[in-house]
Amino acid sequence: MKTAILGTGTVGRTIAARLAELGHTVTIGTRDPEATLSRTEPDAMGTPPFAAWAAENTGIALAGFAEAAAGAELVVNATNGAASLDVLTQAGAESLDGKVILDIANPLDFSTGMPPTLFVKDTDSLGEQIQRAFPAARVVKSLNTMNAALMAHPDRLTEAGSVFVSGNDSDAKDTVTGLLKEFGHQDVIDLGDITTARGTEMLLPVWLRLWGALGTPDFNFKIVR
Amino acid sequence: MKTAILGTGTVGRTIAARLAELGHTVTIGTRDPEATLSRTEPDAMGTPPFAAWAAENTGIALAGFAEAAAGAELVVNATNGAASLDVLTQAGAESLDGKVILDIANPLDFSTGMPPTLFVKDTDSLGEQIQRAFPAARVVKSLNTMNAALMAHPDRLTEAGSVFVSGNDSDAKDTVTGLLKEFGHQDVIDLGDITTARGTEMLLPVWLRLWGALGTPDFNFKIVR
Repeated sequence: MKTAILGTGTVGRTIAARLAELGHTVTIGTRDPEATLSRTEPDAMGTPPFAAWAAENTGIALAGFAEAAAGAELVVNATNGAASLDVLTQAGAESLDGKVILDIANPLDFSTGMPPTLFVKDTDSLGEQIQRAFPAARVVKSLNTMNAALMAHPDRLTEAGSVFVSGNDSDAKDTVTGLLKEFGHQDVIDLGDITTARGTEMLLPVWLRLWGALGTPDFNFKIVR
Repeated sequence: MKTAILGTGTVGRTIAARLAELGHTVTIGTRDPEATLSRTEPDAMGTPPFAAWAAENTGIALAGFAEAAAGAELVVNATNGAASLDVLTQAGAESLDGKVILDIANPLDFSTGMPPTLFVKDTDSLGEQIQRAFPAARVVKSLNTMNAALMAHPDRLTEAGSVFVSGNDSDAKDTVTGLLKEFGHQDVIDLGDITTARGTEMLLPVWLRLWGALGTPDFNFKIVR
């Protein structure tokens, strides 16, 4: 499948590498490709510069947001939640029309320190905001309830967790579910329409506390029944 | 241990019966014991009248909120979230001083229909509201992330889930953890202080959607790692 990944951070890189490894065509979208490639220092999170990663991941293209999205059948929103609507607007509604948007972002608000709060919750969600802003796109919220390494390689844990999908379009959810199974996810739970993204985005506060309590982000939610 | 259960609904009855089965002394607290015993019809949720249940659960006492709490070492808040502060106020700060309050309630707001929203979240929680209202009590939030049957008998599922504890007082958390283990809970995760109750209360929206998606409330969150 032709895919575009919006976002050059850890989540974007991890999903891009996994899709390429599985034989998909991958273009990473960024605001300014030249600027992205010219950075030589790690960012504030300690993530190595993109050019170093790209040198080890040949075959993955880099382009502006609009160009990346225009050529893709499936667009992955791997930006941070506070930037997501702006980035998708730069990609452009015409590049997103009819496309599946796999939305991995979470509406984390770091403005009042740690732990972050949520800038939208309970009666609305980031997934719904994106679907409303791009009504001709088909938004599927998924993968936002685990760390990047587990998104791409759920078999890192000896016991696999569950992954949720939320969205209004059944075909789009089928497409995403197929990719999730390629990644190795075995327990994919369809929660319903995009309003159910409220529930998975609201998992982040306990996820962050579990990270603190367990001392590692390498854990997952498994729904036992 | 001498325990009081505030609330005569399904959660209160289930916890009361389990504690009694394990040999603890149990008094259920209610607003007006005479009125509670005089009801002969199921309530709006279809729960059978209390007197019928009490007839099959002899050895469990019924008393007013204050009397029940005054005689107990551990008080279980099994009221609905919207009523919790009012009920605990009726029990009285002097009856709660120094006591462990095991808070199972969730801040569900049904005023705008289904699914319910949360009347407190993200930057505060019901557990914190209770701790602030009764600073001399030792509040431990737990068990609020699963249905009543699983709270009392986690081995109903072939694969057991996890249960979380949040609270400011280590001894109180140890007391609650001991009871949880008596109930059969094996994976008890201490998330930290009472502010971590925000995370577990915010699990309710996805819990409610999972109930819809799975067609049963007999499921649980297991943290795999």
